[in-house]
Amino acid sequence: MAERPNPGEFELIAHYFAPLSASQPGALGLCDDAALLPPSPGAVHVLTTDTLISGVHFLPNDTPALIARKLLRVNLSDLAAMSAQPVAYLLALSLPGGYDETWIKEFAAGLAQDQEEFGIGLLGGDTTATPGPLSATITAIGEVPTGKELRRSGARPGDAVFVSGTLGDAALGLMALGGRLPQLADAEADELIDRYRLPRPRISLGRALDGLASAAADISDGLVADLAHVCTASDVAAQIDRARLPLGQAARAAIAANPETAYTVLSGGDDYELLFTAPPEAAAGVLAAAARSGVPVAEVGNIVVGGGVKVIAEDGREIELTSTGYRHF
Amino acid sequence: MAERPNPGEFELIAHYFAPLSASQPGALGLCDDAALLPPSPGAVHVLTTDTLISGVHFLPNDTPALIARKLLRVNLSDLAAMSAQPVAYLLALSLPGGYDETWIKEFAAGLAQDQEEFGIGLLGGDTTATPGPLSATITAIGEVPTGKELRRSGARPGDAVFVSGTLGDAALGLMALGGRLPQLADAEADELIDRYRLPRPRISLGRALDGLASAAADISDGLVADLAHVCTASDVAAQIDRARLPLGQAARAAIAANPETAYTVLSGGDDYELLFTAPPEAAAGVLAAAARSGVPVAEVGNIVVGGGVKVIAEDGREIELTSTGYRHF
Repeated sequence: MAERPNPGEFELIAHYFAPLSASQPGALGLCDDAALLPPSPGAVHVLTTDTLISGVHFLPNDTPALIARKLLRVNLSDLAAMSAQPVAYLLALSLPGGYDETWIKEFAAGLAQDQEEFGIGLLGGDTTATPGPLSATITAIGEVPTGKELRRSGARPGDAVFVSGTLGDAALGLMALGGRLPQLADAEADELIDRYRLPRPRISLGRALDGLASAAADISDGLVADLAHVCTASDVAAQIDRARLPLGQAARAAIAANPETAYTVLSGGDDYELLFTAPPEAAAGVLAAAARSGVPVAEVGNIVVGGGVKVIAEDGREIELTSTGYRHF
Repeated sequence: MAERPNPGEFELIAHYFAPLSASQPGALGLCDDAALLPPSPGAVHVLTTDTLISGVHFLPNDTPALIARKLLRVNLSDLAAMSAQPVAYLLALSLPGGYDETWIKEFAAGLAQDQEEFGIGLLGGDTTATPGPLSATITAIGEVPTGKELRRSGARPGDAVFVSGTLGDAALGLMALGGRLPQLADAEADELIDRYRLPRPRISLGRALDGLASAAADISDGLVADLAHVCTASDVAAQIDRARLPLGQAARAAIAANPETAYTVLSGGDDYELLFTAPPEAAAGVLAAAARSGVPVAEVGNIVVGGGVKVIAEDGREIELTSTGYRHF
């Protein structure tokens, strides 16, 4: 935790971060050079890392607690897509000069809230000063019984394609934040903005799909882009019916008022829903798993022989996709 | 590996980063949401994370290969201090606009070189665009037999204090880079600069100290600062004899020409040597372990009852320390 501390770093860690490690004996109170993580018998560790940068992945005026929770959750969403149970995480935080202790206190409070919700603890980290914007990287570690992980490469022709929750909400929420959906009622705008700011990693659904799903990914780049990754990894094609894509009430209202935003359902990023495939005989099991985990799932298409993703409109014609996802550069 | 890709990210990953994961079947070709890491029987995973930022931890004109290797090595040094054997790592890379493919190619080549040297592989990662300076975070994972890790908290009164290699080189190297040691011969300056740019994580020594050392840390903040951390964690005090501190030939020349730089031996950061304690009966074993791992070690002081670190000068008087380490803010 300690390469080149700034004055007060040790005190800040002791006050705000060490308590976050209380549930992790292997964190050694964040006082050592590294942390210990014994695996559970019969399980493998599952690891992922993601960075969020101010002004790129969140708005500079987002609250510290929301930034912390979003960072944690985008990582947990990757674990969910592998059917892993989250265990712990490491945090590397780069702070611009002039950050204040209140910011760190609220950031740590956001982490504490989500640690409680997801049953995880802080295992280690690093704090550095940066001349750039605030940036934070989390490496999340989960566990899955050996051989039981879900991969992107398992989809087979004949499988059905499912998605959890609703699509397009986060991208519409970002538009609402930018004042681009002025006709929307405040309550609906708030609902979409909340979906942008606070992903819901589908951990329990991911675990419940063990033995049912043939492939899975989380939807971070947009449905079509992420499904294309699954198709490439599995060497198959997918066909999606737009009419079957699950939309929330607020998204329906936003798209009705702004029809040009309909593409967000196909290519809007940041929903962090699960996208998965399952053979026909698993369909009833999938619905039961969804019910058990309290997350709705919708069957939206099929896996076929070939390559790429086709989207079929309500009139039966194929939709030409001009963009398959939000891109940064 | 894939939250919000920039155009070409997948291609860059496929070309330059996926080959780095070839030795890690659990990396799944960097094509999935997360990576798998099965533990070896009887071992626990050891995890650490560190960030390097351009202009803070390395010079903007350092070569991409050196930046990559330094980033990897500062993490591996933390594993060495726990007596862990490195296994794999995750990389989160934040690139400013306008970086070019040549930079990434050379960065990946630096990683490949050190992967070979340390027997590790890339397990996963994330690539993002940043409006700030180039920044990179590595999370390194090692293994240690259960219960065999070295911690900072094991030092006991009566133990001897040891350090590996030589001290002060990296801090003097940074001064030489800044033109602050003009009297130094080029060869000596180059040797010190190389020590600043390319840490030598003491992996084999760390492993060889299993069953011998009572506590260990790596020297990243400076001898006195890091020894103070060991003392705090162990609830003991330490007394160091300045005359016994190991100096290299180039450091001796630099200090002879610039006596005011002598403090770097006590408080210069970035040496990434091992600092460890061992009971008197282990002294012969420590020297044998050092010989086996090809890294010299020097006994420099003792652990006593109390708190804090005392440094005794050549004349037997205690040295007052005005600074105990390099600080960023």
